Amino acid sequence: MRNIKLVLEYDGTSYVGWQRQANGKSIQGEIEDVLFKVLQEKVDLIGAGRTDAGVHARGQVANFRTDTKLDLEAIRGALNGLLPDDIILRELQEAPLDFHARFNAKERFYSYFITLKPSAFQMNYSWHIKYRLNVTLMKRAADLILGTHDFESFCKADSEVDHYRCTVSVSCWSQEDSTLTYKIRANRFLHNMVRALVGTMVDVGRGYLPFDDFPKIVERKDRKEAGVTAPAKGLFLESVIY
Amino acid sequence: MRNIKLVLEYDGTSYVGWQRQANGKSIQGEIEDVLFKVLQEKVDLIGAGRTDAGVHARGQVANFRTDTKLDLEAIRGALNGLLPDDIILRELQEAPLDFHARFNAKERFYSYFITLKPSAFQMNYSWHIKYRLNVTLMKRAADLILGTHDFESFCKADSEVDHYRCTVSVSCWSQEDSTLTYKIRANRFLHNMVRALVGTMVDVGRGYLPFDDFPKIVERKDRKEAGVTAPAKGLFLESVIY
Repeated sequence: MRNIKLVLEYDGTSYVGWQRQANGKSIQGEIEDVLFKVLQEKVDLIGAGRTDAGVHARGQVANFRTDTKLDLEAIRGALNGLLPDDIILRELQEAPLDFHARFNAKERFYSYFITLKPSAFQMNYSWHIKYRLNVTLMKRAADLILGTHDFESFCKADSEVDHYRCTVSVSCWSQEDSTLTYKIRANRFLHNMVRALVGTMVDVGRGYLPFDDFPKIVERKDRKEAGVTAPAKGLFLESVIY
Repeated sequence: MRNIKLVLEYDGTSYVGWQRQANGKSIQGEIEDVLFKVLQEKVDLIGAGRTDAGVHARGQVANFRTDTKLDLEAIRGALNGLLPDDIILRELQEAPLDFHARFNAKERFYSYFITLKPSAFQMNYSWHIKYRLNVTLMKRAADLILGTHDFESFCKADSEVDHYRCTVSVSCWSQEDSTLTYKIRANRFLHNMVRALVGTMVDVGRGYLPFDDFPKIVERKDRKEAGVTAPAKGLFLESVIY
């Protein structure tokens, strides 16, 4: 038995998300199907982050166990040849047998992109916002979620989790020309958490939500309190830290 | 009668090209249809460059004549609201009645992008090349076409033109990380000219075509002599100079 670790980049635009689903093409499904062709063996591909439909990745990490005798170079070559153009294999390596892409991840790192000027080339990769945004207030809001907090207010209602505590080590906005970028790094992420945080901070930035209400929303632990969910297309899973 | 000038950015991926055609959505057709809704008047939109299917633009220039009484702000707002997300109006202004986006253009400026490393996010915006390329030779080839030459060897066979002379004022390759960019500026471009030039220079760069054959191909004035036509998706009409 071997355990093989992959690092993947993908454009999520045409997919129902990471996870295999009955209703359309998934990233996991595409890769598992290609692995079946290459290895002649059905494998379970475990992804570090289950990205939603339209969410992208530059550094998704996954692993699968296999009995194949093929060497890494052969598997790499076959994957490069057979994967669709919007899924790129960045790295492929042997991992210890007990390596688990999801459970072993110490932190995940996401970026969210907002464009203040419409761009034909960013339409699938950013959220275009027409309002004026007070970026200073958004930066202050981002600071408030650093550390360990209960993020139930920023979690999709139907999520089956034991608890909502997450420890956030990076949370910051930056601006370059007409692009606003939010970077967040945490030990775990709840379903829709980044998109709910971004949507709520944008509500603060456009003056729709008073800044002082932001910490109260965190305290109330109720998803109905937070702002809109930012569109999936602006979200990128940048990397996974082990 | 008024004459209105537009500067447009578009992602050509989903279109049959600039020019209205029976077999699918065109950039010109989309904009003319929106203008019809806004102005309640059928207009002829003249583009500076008739970009092919899959070719993009950051600074296409177009004009149309109209009898509308609507002010520019109203037309701009309606276009911004009604155009699809992959066609962006960058500028809109009144032009002299005799302004003609195509005939008055002094020069057009195109870029072509090659990626040496596959990228999920550049798949519709660049040509991914797996071969090693000798960029020094490609730069020397690019230098050779500066000035006035007959470009019949780099023109699609069925083009109906009087002559094939073009005056090239910029022709250069540059590299940044794994992206190679070719920039070319000329008073006129023949059909498929940039793509045929790029394909032929890539043939030189990968060693498939001896460098010394490149000037001979130009001299022979025969499209069959030149190399492959580079894919449309790497080509961008950057700007038009009047």
